[in-house]
Amino acid sequence: SPPPCTDFDKAYFHCYAHVGIHEEMIKDSVRTETYKAAIMHHQSFIEGKVVMDVGCGTGILSIFCAQAGAKRVYAVDASDIAVQANEVVKANNLADRVIVLHGRVEDVEIYEKVDVIISEWMGYMLLYESMLGSVIAARDRWLKRGGLILPCTATLYMAPITHPDRYKDSIEFWRNVYGIDMSVMMPLAKLCAFEEPCVETITGENVMARPHVVKHVDCYTIQLHELESVSTRYKFQSTMRAPLHGFALWFDAEFSGPASSTNNNPVDGFRGKKHANPDEALVLSTGPEDLPTHWQQTLIYYFDPIEVEQDQIIEGSLTLSQNKENHRFMNIRLVCSSGGMSYVKELVMR
Amino acid sequence: SPPPCTDFDKAYFHCYAHVGIHEEMIKDSVRTETYKAAIMHHQSFIEGKVVMDVGCGTGILSIFCAQAGAKRVYAVDASDIAVQANEVVKANNLADRVIVLHGRVEDVEIYEKVDVIISEWMGYMLLYESMLGSVIAARDRWLKRGGLILPCTATLYMAPITHPDRYKDSIEFWRNVYGIDMSVMMPLAKLCAFEEPCVETITGENVMARPHVVKHVDCYTIQLHELESVSTRYKFQSTMRAPLHGFALWFDAEFSGPASSTNNNPVDGFRGKKHANPDEALVLSTGPEDLPTHWQQTLIYYFDPIEVEQDQIIEGSLTLSQNKENHRFMNIRLVCSSGGMSYVKELVMR
Repeated sequence: SPPPCTDFDKAYFHCYAHVGIHEEMIKDSVRTETYKAAIMHHQSFIEGKVVMDVGCGTGILSIFCAQAGAKRVYAVDASDIAVQANEVVKANNLADRVIVLHGRVEDVEIYEKVDVIISEWMGYMLLYESMLGSVIAARDRWLKRGGLILPCTATLYMAPITHPDRYKDSIEFWRNVYGIDMSVMMPLAKLCAFEEPCVETITGENVMARPHVVKHVDCYTIQLHELESVSTRYKFQSTMRAPLHGFALWFDAEFSGPASSTNNNPVDGFRGKKHANPDEALVLSTGPEDLPTHWQQTLIYYFDPIEVEQDQIIEGSLTLSQNKENHRFMNIRLVCSSGGMSYVKELVMR
Repeated sequence: SPPPCTDFDKAYFHCYAHVGIHEEMIKDSVRTETYKAAIMHHQSFIEGKVVMDVGCGTGILSIFCAQAGAKRVYAVDASDIAVQANEVVKANNLADRVIVLHGRVEDVEIYEKVDVIISEWMGYMLLYESMLGSVIAARDRWLKRGGLILPCTATLYMAPITHPDRYKDSIEFWRNVYGIDMSVMMPLAKLCAFEEPCVETITGENVMARPHVVKHVDCYTIQLHELESVSTRYKFQSTMRAPLHGFALWFDAEFSGPASSTNNNPVDGFRGKKHANPDEALVLSTGPEDLPTHWQQTLIYYFDPIEVEQDQIIEGSLTLSQNKENHRFMNIRLVCSSGGMSYVKELVMR
């Protein structure tokens, strides 16, 4: 049997989870700069107000809000990183304005309403291991009427993709290994490479059709039960003749004014041009045509490519649902018909 | 009798069945091409002979040996990858000459002696998770007198290193995070980054002194008990004025003729020029001045750099020993004195 997990192990895995992940997130400059810009963009609203930062991590967004003039910021995190956040706040002489609460949003207590909720809650595929449930809890407990949520909306997209290089590298590689035919390895290689969703960066060249909106989340109105299962029917028309290797999923998140909800009908995952117009909302986009982020894109590959003609229809349905045994896992069911054939793929993202 | 196969061993063998690891090893062309060249270099010895491939993986080295004219090759692997190796052998019509044995070298039976043992047994830092014990077992059970072991020797080196960029990226990064002083994160960041050995690629520019031989392994004579604990005393003279960030370890492996052992006194980790002379042995080198391999180098970092002057002496001792609780883990004890100060670092490589 494996050696027992010592306190040392615990401290190690624990601290690794924290520092490494926070370093990666902070160094994702698309993410951090967009949040910083969104805070500055709403400075006139934030000034003199009460803010809550849900899942504050090292406290960086809370400090940005304090710098933007917030009267008080509640920085909440259930993980031990809250201890570090508190040290960072003290070292920056902000302990009078930034109050770090070490606990779950569902469990902590504050004794006033808040004007602003800010949170970087988005997970892979938007909803995987996301903290949106905590944002909903904070909103329902404490957000004032007319308050601001940053981001205000988020949208999950999908699109069919072709990725011959990926297939060549992992699968066709075995056809000729230093002159040896190892193609009998290919079934196992397909299973190992494509059994689970892959978090990888692709480009616009891999995308075979205009993206489809899987789920639009309005942070002002979304309810917890809506996240238990998300289903969509899609219909793509391929813009190219190419082997279809699977589907990519990604999201964007929008930072507009309080309860604006003016831009609630996204139809095009490629619109994400930040700051294009000073009146337009700021958008953090993680799509294949935008700058790479630590979220990359989430890829669902078929074991074998499906040959698709230009203009061919690719249609079906996608369902994302919480795993019953471990609610952090996500079950994915992808049904696809094209060229008279049907394909079903079921995966678990662990 | 051989030690029992623990659950831990089983987990290890299972994860090696995962295709990705074999793909990475095969795609390490320095590794695979050097083995292929070594087999071709010894073709006149291998022709018509009996070979055993210890830890055969997908069977690639066994097939190279069959192509070089071996009469019979026993391809042994305890992991489930042996099932795949057998399929590869059959698909290449070599089932009459390559016999795949799914089991540990300590447990399988063959009914003849072998002329050649080939094995890619080297782990990180040469000895971490290495299969050298299995090579020793195979040698003692089956190798004929005058037989050939490939590789014949392997040498583990160490050298002091300076790596300001690594320190800057992981530690000093926290001094100024988008204008915020997060230096209170630094102690935890040091723990997370440098508590365990790191497998990373450095270059010759990081190396502060001529390498020191930690352990020279002669595969013809090495005994199992020698691997339980390896100790060395070292003394370096720094070739530069620089912050000492820690030590790098790497190895090379040499492929010369049967029981040659002519080149048994390596003194310089930088000699590794392959094929420099057709009479010289082939060397697979994983040092900082050679082409990168999947082994990279193993780095032991101090939590804080030590300022070292040109020509300053850096001396002490290094002990690598099997962890008592999990014999696949390695305990590392590094003692270092320089400039009148002493430093002790104890680590576990898991």
